[in-house]
Amino acid sequence: MITSNSFNEQNKPAACGSSRIVGCRFSLFPMSGHFVPIILGALENTDTSKVWIKSDDISTCVRGRHEHVFDVVQSIFLQAAKSGEHVVLSATFSVGCPGDTEGDVFMSEDDVRLNKDTGSAVDTAVQFALYPMGVPHYMDVIYNAVKTAEIEGTFSGGIHYASRLDGDAHQVFRSLENAFVASSIQTSHLVMTATISCNSPSAKPDHVQNKGE
Amino acid sequence: MITSNSFNEQNKPAACGSSRIVGCRFSLFPMSGHFVPIILGALENTDTSKVWIKSDDISTCVRGRHEHVFDVVQSIFLQAAKSGEHVVLSATFSVGCPGDTEGDVFMSEDDVRLNKDTGSAVDTAVQFALYPMGVPHYMDVIYNAVKTAEIEGTFSGGIHYASRLDGDAHQVFRSLENAFVASSIQTSHLVMTATISCNSPSAKPDHVQNKGE
Repeated sequence: MITSNSFNEQNKPAACGSSRIVGCRFSLFPMSGHFVPIILGALENTDTSKVWIKSDDISTCVRGRHEHVFDVVQSIFLQAAKSGEHVVLSATFSVGCPGDTEGDVFMSEDDVRLNKDTGSAVDTAVQFALYPMGVPHYMDVIYNAVKTAEIEGTFSGGIHYASRLDGDAHQVFRSLENAFVASSIQTSHLVMTATISCNSPSAKPDHVQNKGE
Repeated sequence: MITSNSFNEQNKPAACGSSRIVGCRFSLFPMSGHFVPIILGALENTDTSKVWIKSDDISTCVRGRHEHVFDVVQSIFLQAAKSGEHVVLSATFSVGCPGDTEGDVFMSEDDVRLNKDTGSAVDTAVQFALYPMGVPHYMDVIYNAVKTAEIEGTFSGGIHYASRLDGDAHQVFRSLENAFVASSIQTSHLVMTATISCNSPSAKPDHVQNKGE
C-alpha cells in the first residue's frame, strides 16, 4: 500500500489510514568525492532496528514512532558530520496518511532511543517549513511551532518559504521534533521539510553569526 | 515582508498576498570535493535577469513568473550536471503566499525563457510531492497532477511520501512545471517539493530500468 502523494503503478490514489506512524524520506549529501562511503558508513553506524527502513537510488525512507524516526535521522546526520565534510541532509517528515501495513509493527516498539553515540557538538543550520494539510487554520499551526522554537533559542529568523534554526545539531533536531510533534496534534495530516547543514564553507548571515553574543 | 512558513525576527506571521508570483527555494548538491566551483559556475552560467534571486549559506531563492523560475532552476541543474559528477537539486516551489514586494516587479517580464544552452540529454530521476494548502480536496489535486505525468510518460511509480519521474532532464522538468501550474489553478496556495538527481552511481529500481523496454 502507498501513502498520500504517492500512487501505485495502476495510478490509483491510496486511501489514508488512521495509524499515527511517522515517516521521513531523506537524502544525505556529503559534498565530497568520498560520498559513497560517508553515506553507507552513516547508515551502518546507526541502529535502525526500531524503524522500517528502505533506501533507493535517490533517498531513504524510515517509518515508526516519532522518537525513533528522529533518533535515526539525527544519528545518520551526525555520523556523516564526523567526516568533517560539508554535509547536508534534506528531509520530508510526514504523519497522518500511512496506509502501509509493513511499518505498523514498529509502532509497538518502546520509546527508548537507540543511538546515543552521536559524537561531539556540531554547529548546524536548518531551514524548515511545516505543511499542515487539509485544514484552513494551517497558518496558526505554523505560527505556534515557530513560537516554540523561539522560546527554545534555536529560531534565527524567517526567510522566503522557510524558517531558520541555528545551534548544535542536538538542539536543532530537538526543535524540529518538538515542532513536528506539537503540530501533529493540531492536524490529522502533517508534513515538515527540513534542510540541515553543517561544515559549510559559506558564512552564515550576519544576524545569525552574532546570535547570542 | 515575509511569506508563509516564515516569520520576521519579531516572530509575527506575515499576511498572505494576492500576487501569483512563483518562488523556488533550492539547494544544489554536487557530490564532489569541487562542489564550490560547480555551484558557483552553475549560477554564473545561468541568465537570472528575469527573476528575483538571493542566496544564503544553505540555499538559493528565485522568484518571478513560473516560466522563468522553472527555466532558471532547470538551467542551474543542467549546468551542474555538465560536471559529470553526481548532482542533486532539492527544491521547494511555492505560489499563493508572496507578501514580498521586492519580487513583484519581475511579474511584468515577458514569457520568453532566457536559458537555451542547456546541454545534451541527461538521464534524470525525480521524487516529488505536491502540497495544496488550506483545502480539504487536496488529494484530488495531487491525483490529477500524477495522472498528467503518467500521460506525459515520465511517471514511474509511487513511493512513500512521493511520486517518481524518470527521463531526460528537460522532460522531467516539463512534467514538474506542468504539475505545478495545473495544480496552482486548483488551489490558492500550493507547495511542491522535488529531489532531482543525475549521474548517480546507484542503480535505479528494476521497474524503472526496464521502463519503456
